[in-house]
Amino acid sequence: MGILVVGSIGLDNVATPFGQRADVLGGSCTYFGTAASIYDKVAIVGVVGSDFPQEHIAFLQTRQIDLRGLKVVEGKTFRWSGCYGQDLDVAKTIETQLNVFAGFRPDIPEDLREIPYVFLANIDPDLQLAVLEQVSSPRLVALDSMNYWITSKRERLAEAMAHVDLVLVNEDEARMFTGEGNLISAAESILALGPHAVVVKKGQHGAMMLTRDGDLPRRAFSVPAYPLASVVDPTGAGDTFAGGLVGHLARTGDLTLGGLRRAVVHGAVVASFTVQGFSIDALRDLTMEDVDQRYADMLCLTHFDIPSPDLCRPYEQSIT
Amino acid sequence: MGILVVGSIGLDNVATPFGQRADVLGGSCTYFGTAASIYDKVAIVGVVGSDFPQEHIAFLQTRQIDLRGLKVVEGKTFRWSGCYGQDLDVAKTIETQLNVFAGFRPDIPEDLREIPYVFLANIDPDLQLAVLEQVSSPRLVALDSMNYWITSKRERLAEAMAHVDLVLVNEDEARMFTGEGNLISAAESILALGPHAVVVKKGQHGAMMLTRDGDLPRRAFSVPAYPLASVVDPTGAGDTFAGGLVGHLARTGDLTLGGLRRAVVHGAVVASFTVQGFSIDALRDLTMEDVDQRYADMLCLTHFDIPSPDLCRPYEQSIT
Repeated sequence: MGILVVGSIGLDNVATPFGQRADVLGGSCTYFGTAASIYDKVAIVGVVGSDFPQEHIAFLQTRQIDLRGLKVVEGKTFRWSGCYGQDLDVAKTIETQLNVFAGFRPDIPEDLREIPYVFLANIDPDLQLAVLEQVSSPRLVALDSMNYWITSKRERLAEAMAHVDLVLVNEDEARMFTGEGNLISAAESILALGPHAVVVKKGQHGAMMLTRDGDLPRRAFSVPAYPLASVVDPTGAGDTFAGGLVGHLARTGDLTLGGLRRAVVHGAVVASFTVQGFSIDALRDLTMEDVDQRYADMLCLTHFDIPSPDLCRPYEQSIT
Repeated sequence: MGILVVGSIGLDNVATPFGQRADVLGGSCTYFGTAASIYDKVAIVGVVGSDFPQEHIAFLQTRQIDLRGLKVVEGKTFRWSGCYGQDLDVAKTIETQLNVFAGFRPDIPEDLREIPYVFLANIDPDLQLAVLEQVSSPRLVALDSMNYWITSKRERLAEAMAHVDLVLVNEDEARMFTGEGNLISAAESILALGPHAVVVKKGQHGAMMLTRDGDLPRRAFSVPAYPLASVVDPTGAGDTFAGGLVGHLARTGDLTLGGLRRAVVHGAVVASFTVQGFSIDALRDLTMEDVDQRYADMLCLTHFDIPSPDLCRPYEQSIT
């Protein structure tokens, strides 16, 4: 089994109402990989500069992450500086320095091309499509993106979405990408492009998934966010959500509708840990036991009635 | 059994991106009563002017609603004019004419004082407290309010909240009332005033309930909104949410934690019908069967795993 992720690895400066951190480990690939490595073997494809601290490499190695696809090139590592206001909902980017990431062309090492679960983290859709050409019929490909690519490369992003199994997208970005104010309609529009499932991330309001076929209440799935009385730093919540989701799929191999729903809950669980610390701090010592405990808590949080066996049966169908 | 509701009965002018209606039946008492009458016998206490159309009286009578507490006095009926923007989240009030409602002093007829379930709809907290003095130890009292009273009569509202079993409040109003940005903290603050449960209504994001005692995932409950690809008019969603909630409690008599959770889901279900039409139009012919069907749909929408019997046991405790 195993999971391949292609995305950014960087150093962040972050300020939230609860504190600030400079030069901390960041990047979509890092967040996703750290989260997914709780579940299964992860291989990273990305690039860092010669200034990238050895301690971060060492950390990724402690998570058994395969770094053969991580290039270290002369120059500076990708950097992002951002801050959050009181509501913690939207990150305000202060500065992005692409640095060595500007010349990044994903080159998947031969040994990694057979990995069955692939995550295309938020990078240029052209690069996401380039990765798809290199991998050998993976069992499941998931893709994330962001407002920057929606605005600047909408057509290529739509093409990439058409070629993956699962699209992850933020609530606002789903609306922006589709021009639909209603979130169900927005998700339907993305689904119409080709993927089997769309997961809309709604921050403190949880997540919604839409899959193909059947009537709406059976192919829509909603899960709330884990209730937290304090959130420290939302950076990386979306990428670690994807890490928990794809991690659970890879660990179980369960691509039924029910399996996918449980994977979405795992995404919500891992993201809820992430936001309790800066950078990946809250994930450093996180164990599968911690995750399982909070998954059980999610069942407590959402439980109101016992569904009949008849009601549950459709969830045992495979989505791909 | 039975349900007593005290609140406003009025005529609304409403404009949404999907149309507009003039002089339609409105008011918190009307919305709540219409919704709750699907579940159980309802008695209304309120006031209308001599201009109040007979057809509306006739409609309430078709729902078997007890109108002995409805005063018809010389003058004009309460009127509200409002509109909604594209996001349908927040109503913009264009005009409020209190008219005969300005002199409303709830006087509960002797025969109605023993009704076991009481809903104090959004009116002056002084009047809500006056109702509490007149009723005879009801089994459950729920209360709703709005930003106007939070701003103008905060202390009296807090006192009213302290004397009821269940407080319903909008997301923004929970934050406004408590000064807490975090919704869990806001709900905890309201709970600290005295009620057994707080239900925070989050519109398209569903609802969250917090109850007393135990650890957070067991006493917090989250339910998403029913997925709708089109919403026509959100007016009355909150009051009919309360109608479904209190209606289910009255019909079942089940005041366990599990019963309360199922009641919250009924609130979400009834509200989801309400917003599919203007005024109470979508509720006019709504049956218990329609509600039960959508309740089953809510189970489909939220189902991801089967909880163990151990996990479910705490939900069988009574909350009062």
